[in-house]
Amino acid sequence: MIQDTTPDIDLALFGAMGDLALRKLYPALYHLDRDGLLADDTRIMGLARQDIDAEAFRKKVQETLKKYVKAAELESTCIKRFLDRLDYIKLDFTDVEGYKAIREWHEGSGRPMTVYLAVPASIYGAICSNLQASGSLDDESRVVVEKPIGYDLESSQEINDAIGVVFPETRVYRIDHYLGKETVQNLIALRFANPLFGTQWNQNHISHVEITVAEQVGIEGRWGYFDKAGQLRDMVQNHLLQLLCLIAMDPPSNLDADAIRDEKVKVLKALKRFNRENVGRDVVRGQYIAGSINGTSVPGYLDEEGANTDSHTETFVAMRTEVSNWRWAGVPFYLRTGKRMPEKLSQIVIHFRQQPHYIFDPDQRNLAANKLIIRLQPEEGIALEVLTKDGGLDKGMRLRPGPLHLDFNSAFPKARIPDAYERLLLEVMKGNQYLFVRRDEVEYAWRWADQLVEAWEQLDRPPRRYPSGSWGPVASIAMITQDGRSWYEDY
Amino acid sequence: MIQDTTPDIDLALFGAMGDLALRKLYPALYHLDRDGLLADDTRIMGLARQDIDAEAFRKKVQETLKKYVKAAELESTCIKRFLDRLDYIKLDFTDVEGYKAIREWHEGSGRPMTVYLAVPASIYGAICSNLQASGSLDDESRVVVEKPIGYDLESSQEINDAIGVVFPETRVYRIDHYLGKETVQNLIALRFANPLFGTQWNQNHISHVEITVAEQVGIEGRWGYFDKAGQLRDMVQNHLLQLLCLIAMDPPSNLDADAIRDEKVKVLKALKRFNRENVGRDVVRGQYIAGSINGTSVPGYLDEEGANTDSHTETFVAMRTEVSNWRWAGVPFYLRTGKRMPEKLSQIVIHFRQQPHYIFDPDQRNLAANKLIIRLQPEEGIALEVLTKDGGLDKGMRLRPGPLHLDFNSAFPKARIPDAYERLLLEVMKGNQYLFVRRDEVEYAWRWADQLVEAWEQLDRPPRRYPSGSWGPVASIAMITQDGRSWYEDY
Repeated sequence: MIQDTTPDIDLALFGAMGDLALRKLYPALYHLDRDGLLADDTRIMGLARQDIDAEAFRKKVQETLKKYVKAAELESTCIKRFLDRLDYIKLDFTDVEGYKAIREWHEGSGRPMTVYLAVPASIYGAICSNLQASGSLDDESRVVVEKPIGYDLESSQEINDAIGVVFPETRVYRIDHYLGKETVQNLIALRFANPLFGTQWNQNHISHVEITVAEQVGIEGRWGYFDKAGQLRDMVQNHLLQLLCLIAMDPPSNLDADAIRDEKVKVLKALKRFNRENVGRDVVRGQYIAGSINGTSVPGYLDEEGANTDSHTETFVAMRTEVSNWRWAGVPFYLRTGKRMPEKLSQIVIHFRQQPHYIFDPDQRNLAANKLIIRLQPEEGIALEVLTKDGGLDKGMRLRPGPLHLDFNSAFPKARIPDAYERLLLEVMKGNQYLFVRRDEVEYAWRWADQLVEAWEQLDRPPRRYPSGSWGPVASIAMITQDGRSWYEDY
Repeated sequence: MIQDTTPDIDLALFGAMGDLALRKLYPALYHLDRDGLLADDTRIMGLARQDIDAEAFRKKVQETLKKYVKAAELESTCIKRFLDRLDYIKLDFTDVEGYKAIREWHEGSGRPMTVYLAVPASIYGAICSNLQASGSLDDESRVVVEKPIGYDLESSQEINDAIGVVFPETRVYRIDHYLGKETVQNLIALRFANPLFGTQWNQNHISHVEITVAEQVGIEGRWGYFDKAGQLRDMVQNHLLQLLCLIAMDPPSNLDADAIRDEKVKVLKALKRFNRENVGRDVVRGQYIAGSINGTSVPGYLDEEGANTDSHTETFVAMRTEVSNWRWAGVPFYLRTGKRMPEKLSQIVIHFRQQPHYIFDPDQRNLAANKLIIRLQPEEGIALEVLTKDGGLDKGMRLRPGPLHLDFNSAFPKARIPDAYERLLLEVMKGNQYLFVRRDEVEYAWRWADQLVEAWEQLDRPPRRYPSGSWGPVASIAMITQDGRSWYEDY
């Protein structure tokens, strides 16, 4: 997989004035351009309903770069080159007539048309069909879509069907931006290039796995949207399951996109289902109440602007699940994610088993065994916790846990860690799908989530309340404590 | 093994004005005292033939502390307390009459008599028998002896017999100062407290092991002494074999001294013997010629002061050996040690096996697999080399080797790494023998070394010449290269 140079593309960006485009896509594209990773003739067409001209559009993009790119990385010749790639078409996305302008722009360019849908999923279908009807597409055209793809299995199938009428699966790029993070890709290198880990990556050697994705923010003005989804659909069904798949999958025979995604699907199929019997014991739903974060008081979920005060939507989920296959039988996977946690923290912790015999001081028996800690946020990094001899002369053969660190920032100080969108956009241009979610992955994930939602509905229990700035309901601590374990917090 | 406070002892130090005592023992004892690890009533009696009084002796010790202890660690109240413990007896070690003064000093003190023999092994027997004849010993008396214990199996047995007439094995402390190094003890913690390493510590997972003990110095004025011994007897028979034993031993059932030493003896018994057939292929002897170290010209071994110009004594040994048991069959242990190397370097490198299947770029196939690097000198530390994803956006899924470091100095900046003699003296006082070499260990090591010497004699080949400041004869590089490997040099 040595990468060739990036091919030229025509990028048609729907939702060109939206939040995602402004905060993430232009900065990512600018960085790629600056690093010499955009081909010379690559062009970007902004598409939105705002009635502005190309000049005003470029100005808007320039402003957003100033806001979201570090000053030291803004170079005027680079900015100019990047802005020169941009053009703009005012477009009502439902009006097929308007798409002619896209066809005219692209026709005869010889560059693959790459359509980026930074718009709500409800209009994916209309856009795809209008693009086709207007003759803007060809046999190489690709489409990039953002989550959420639906709200459950049924709605996701509708959306995927609508896309599928126009684009074959091999040209659909479903983004889960977690897959673009360096550390997440590093999971593949860690697991499959390192025999020390690779040979122990199973139930014989691993006792349990933790995945934590804690957000410090609350609802951020999108109460109405979030309340229909909840934390399970918003975070677990996509990001946490993707991380789980990469940790749990069997080794693919090669690094082809489908070889990897076949293995991920196998994990989703083997993931333990929840039902009315086990959901009360193995899953904790929470909803934040008022509290304080970093010393600032914040309102509860039901006091947020626009709140429906009798909502039972969860802003926190913790669960104990299992991958029922030969590799993982009996190994709990503890997942938790929530809003208004004490800190922004995404990390995976692989806990290796203790050995059956123990020869050091009995009071240290419970000192942690080895752990591999894969940190995605706030800083990306990997650490391996090992036990060494305590250095003090008065300590005899006392043990001390100490991390072997691989902090990307300090280990490789010159390397800037690229944003996930840079990596993902680059792979779209190169036509590599291995970091994108295949349709069956999305659908198996929804199947699993739908069963969990159904079990919740049968249980009919309101979410447990937790103060903003805490690590979630006490029950989520108790759930893991009952197993004689605890959520890993030091790093 | 939680340590109690150190018991009081009476320390009778033979060779009190000698190089070892001055450079190592007083500084170590001072450090112990400063750290509160010498019991209040512990007393130290210097014994030497110099005709000086106690005051002059204390003055000499005070001078040596100034020379060998860091200024920041010299505290006047501490120095005073330490010097107050010292006394001195002028003694001809062969004159039994003179020992009465020792008996008088010790008699009725109630503290165990601890005899430290910092003198040549040839007079160990005489001292022990004089101590006994003079009634200076009791049922708790211990003796501490320094290497070299003999020159071959026969001479070592004579020495051990002479000691054994007076002291039972449970009260004999044979020092190999390598065993007092923090990192060497850490091998025990690393192997037996860390399942990640413990479960892979065998021929299924480890491809080969390297042990390098490189000295930068030459003969340092002891040509006559060294020339009778050579590097095999001076370094391999003791230090390198001790390291090899700690790496290769089966896990002891507990940390008792004899449980550990039983396992070490098993390794020595299983160590492959050399004979006339394999010695030419598997062992390289070298002798340094003139060269330069750090830009300074240095003379060859045969040009050193006092040299016998037709000596065939080796100043360098490299070998490929094997531990013929279930754990290690087929795993080469590459050992090398030499004088006048480019740097002072002692390290152990555990090379883990590659996995049979490989899915990354074919040109990276030969990128190192995992290695555990245990560094004793110049700085003590542990590193684990893992392969991670190369961080550059243009790199796709390219791999990069990176070390996970545990550098004791930076990980635990407050902790001073104690000198090996501090640890060893403390264990003598506490009566813990696990860091000391048992008689059968010494003798099995000599048995092995004697066979190697005999094979050399049968082969009758002069040592290969290597320039000072090089890593030894080219043949020592070729030996490992033939196996498709190389000596590890980066850290």
